[in-house]
Amino acid sequence: MDTPPTPSAPLSAALIDRFASIVGTAYAVREPNDIAPYLVERRDLFHGRTPIVLRPGSADEVAAIARLANETRTPIVPQGGNTGLVGGQVPDNSGTEVVVSLSRLDKIRSVDPEADAMIAEAGVVLADAQAAAEAADRLLPLSLAAEGSCEIGGNVATNAGGTAVLAYGNTRDLVLGLEVVLASGEVWNGLRTLRKDNTGYDLKNLFIGSEGTLGIITAAALKLFPRPRSVGTALIGLASPEAALALLHRARAIAGHALTSFELMSRLGIDFVLSHLPGSRDPLATRHEWYVLLEVSSGRSDGEARDLVEAIFVDASEAGLIEDGVRAETVEQARAIWHIRHGLPDVQAFEGGSIKHDVSVPVAAVPELIARGSERVRAMIPAIRPVPFGHLGDGNIHFNFTQPPEMDKAAFLGRWQEVNAAVHEIVGELGGSISAEHGIGQLKRSLLPRFKDAVELDLMRKIKATLDPNGILNPGKVL
Amino acid sequence: MDTPPTPSAPLSAALIDRFASIVGTAYAVREPNDIAPYLVERRDLFHGRTPIVLRPGSADEVAAIARLANETRTPIVPQGGNTGLVGGQVPDNSGTEVVVSLSRLDKIRSVDPEADAMIAEAGVVLADAQAAAEAADRLLPLSLAAEGSCEIGGNVATNAGGTAVLAYGNTRDLVLGLEVVLASGEVWNGLRTLRKDNTGYDLKNLFIGSEGTLGIITAAALKLFPRPRSVGTALIGLASPEAALALLHRARAIAGHALTSFELMSRLGIDFVLSHLPGSRDPLATRHEWYVLLEVSSGRSDGEARDLVEAIFVDASEAGLIEDGVRAETVEQARAIWHIRHGLPDVQAFEGGSIKHDVSVPVAAVPELIARGSERVRAMIPAIRPVPFGHLGDGNIHFNFTQPPEMDKAAFLGRWQEVNAAVHEIVGELGGSISAEHGIGQLKRSLLPRFKDAVELDLMRKIKATLDPNGILNPGKVL
Repeated sequence: MDTPPTPSAPLSAALIDRFASIVGTAYAVREPNDIAPYLVERRDLFHGRTPIVLRPGSADEVAAIARLANETRTPIVPQGGNTGLVGGQVPDNSGTEVVVSLSRLDKIRSVDPEADAMIAEAGVVLADAQAAAEAADRLLPLSLAAEGSCEIGGNVATNAGGTAVLAYGNTRDLVLGLEVVLASGEVWNGLRTLRKDNTGYDLKNLFIGSEGTLGIITAAALKLFPRPRSVGTALIGLASPEAALALLHRARAIAGHALTSFELMSRLGIDFVLSHLPGSRDPLATRHEWYVLLEVSSGRSDGEARDLVEAIFVDASEAGLIEDGVRAETVEQARAIWHIRHGLPDVQAFEGGSIKHDVSVPVAAVPELIARGSERVRAMIPAIRPVPFGHLGDGNIHFNFTQPPEMDKAAFLGRWQEVNAAVHEIVGELGGSISAEHGIGQLKRSLLPRFKDAVELDLMRKIKATLDPNGILNPGKVL
Repeated sequence: MDTPPTPSAPLSAALIDRFASIVGTAYAVREPNDIAPYLVERRDLFHGRTPIVLRPGSADEVAAIARLANETRTPIVPQGGNTGLVGGQVPDNSGTEVVVSLSRLDKIRSVDPEADAMIAEAGVVLADAQAAAEAADRLLPLSLAAEGSCEIGGNVATNAGGTAVLAYGNTRDLVLGLEVVLASGEVWNGLRTLRKDNTGYDLKNLFIGSEGTLGIITAAALKLFPRPRSVGTALIGLASPEAALALLHRARAIAGHALTSFELMSRLGIDFVLSHLPGSRDPLATRHEWYVLLEVSSGRSDGEARDLVEAIFVDASEAGLIEDGVRAETVEQARAIWHIRHGLPDVQAFEGGSIKHDVSVPVAAVPELIARGSERVRAMIPAIRPVPFGHLGDGNIHFNFTQPPEMDKAAFLGRWQEVNAAVHEIVGELGGSISAEHGIGQLKRSLLPRFKDAVELDLMRKIKATLDPNGILNPGKVL
């Protein structure tokens, strides 16, 4: 890989003071104990160093920071709620990078139910944005496990996915406009709420998902939707991923856009949940090899979501796809079903080490991915336990492998890259992506040249050089 | 405006021969009579000249053309079905630009109903792409008046809108991946059909809507959807655009994504249609100031779309929004209602000259746009007849003004720019767009600096210079 353009010289005390004076002493974090939380991320895979964390209170202060950074060639690392899983939001170990926390930009500037749009600053916590939409009788559909602490700016910068992508798309699909501080310190005011605007190049999509390497997002205009009046949730036992795929197509034909979630789980995952998650119980009377959690949302009436779920059941039963199934009759029963799905990522830890993948393939190729991936990895580590699960409706599988019960954890995790390589090779052959929703950050940066063709990487590098000629924006991430 | 980077020297015969040899004599159009159709566009606002039209048969030939053009600094003008309305697809008058017709790239490479995706080359006519999707029991929702002759490459290059945007989005929202020939002659193979892919910068959105100025699209991967099982169509008479807006919100709350069209028309537009369109008749017993055509599509059952339309009627009647309304009971009745809407753009010609605008504002601001725009223009030309109509659900109004009956047509059209300026000023004040779906091309190029801030224009120019350093791709368009 190219050497990232990080200077090796430490920042001078005078320069640190100049940065601090932009935000004021109270918001220039310089005590090591106070800095510490900004330097590690959730999975504890990446640790960094910095002499100062800046907490600007306005887009103008962010712009002033960028101007000074650009003038002095100082790398800056934007950070939101610090929930990213690929190390994109933490500085490197050089101690020469300045962290810019956007958390104080926490105002919801407007919620407009007539325009079905809200404008939220980068530091607004996702759950707060959801609540503000709900207070105006609207739905902000973006929803993910970290929603209690992740922030809008980070969601947009990483093009976050989540559990409502099937019906509403990724974060990219929910953004109407952006306000972005450029590397030069100029502010691009692209905070439009228009549904249609064909006046030149689409700039917002360049910043969405660029992980802070092309600009610093300070506010976003987001699409809102009517709140559903009823939600129908069901758990279905079936024989194979192929049956789940066939069910998906039938469910979409019946419910259309009203099909809001379609999650696949294997029996082993259910077993892990039942063993380790307090308050969980087997929702179906008999065991099945595979399970689908499906959810339908209706804007029409209390009964419609239930009717649609019922229609899907009848249709799929007639087609012989369903072995057994249960439909939630109450909100509590729906929660119990989601409890199993949401518990899955964490319970694996109780079974030892896990080697994880956040991959996507064309939806129709998911069964082949699971079959070939499991077979290939089992050939490498015979007693390994595949626990694939995730958003079948989006082709996005969290293809995780838990260690054999008897194996040493460290020895197992030592084979991380080898297992990754095997799975990613199959993903590549199926025309898939090695990062479906978590991004590249530091974790997958070295993999990009193998999975992107040279023309595409070259285009990315040229765009980076054009928008950030001095390489000050989150260097060493993505590219 | 900047001078476009078009060389003034005519192309040498030797260079013309080199271009011709790439596609072969049979596909190098050099006879003036054969060239003529490529030099004018539908509204006959722009005429151009060229010594040669190239009709490549593969992306490789397009790439070879781009390489030679880049090496010799020869401007090239990509053209699809030649249905654009802003002069983006025709050469300038210098006679130094080479037209590259993509129409021979007319293969549908794949239709994959399992993956809900199809890959179509640039020259596939939209109606043929729709038919191929339908043959696989899928819906390609992109639909517009020119669908019988416009081509996929042009649809993507201009981010075409149309009548299904409300539920399915613009062309941008329907594109999963692209194959693009760059100015250098390199080919970017971004023909992915993935629903989720977070591996670096979003390049495809840069080319979508760039009107051939950043690259030449040779193929596109497009999203498909389940075909609706039933469609409900209704025409509703109401008192005002405000009532139409309130109806829109209620209809969306009831039908959600199933609300697939919501079109606004004024009484004067209906009168024009009834006067001039053969086979049209007033669908409601009494006259109303305003009309809404709404359409609901259901994937569930034959009855659902009708039930949803009925539910919208009941709800809106109780709220006092509807003066009268008719629901199509048969396919023929639905066609008759759409006949009125589709007839609207053309019947204006029978009433003399019209000054037209393709604008959008935040959906909630449409009533204000119509009120202020009509008042402002009436103050300029008292007897002028405003005929606003279009996609209220998208905030996109074709805000057209027909001349006073007694006025001289030429004198009226002579005030085009003055009327444009007045309407665009209000659009700007409302945070709207001066080109909602037709693009910039040549027609609106000189307006951009007034409606884009300097930071945004500067970013656009930098990206153009990065992707097309020699300015060979469709110069004089957009920027």
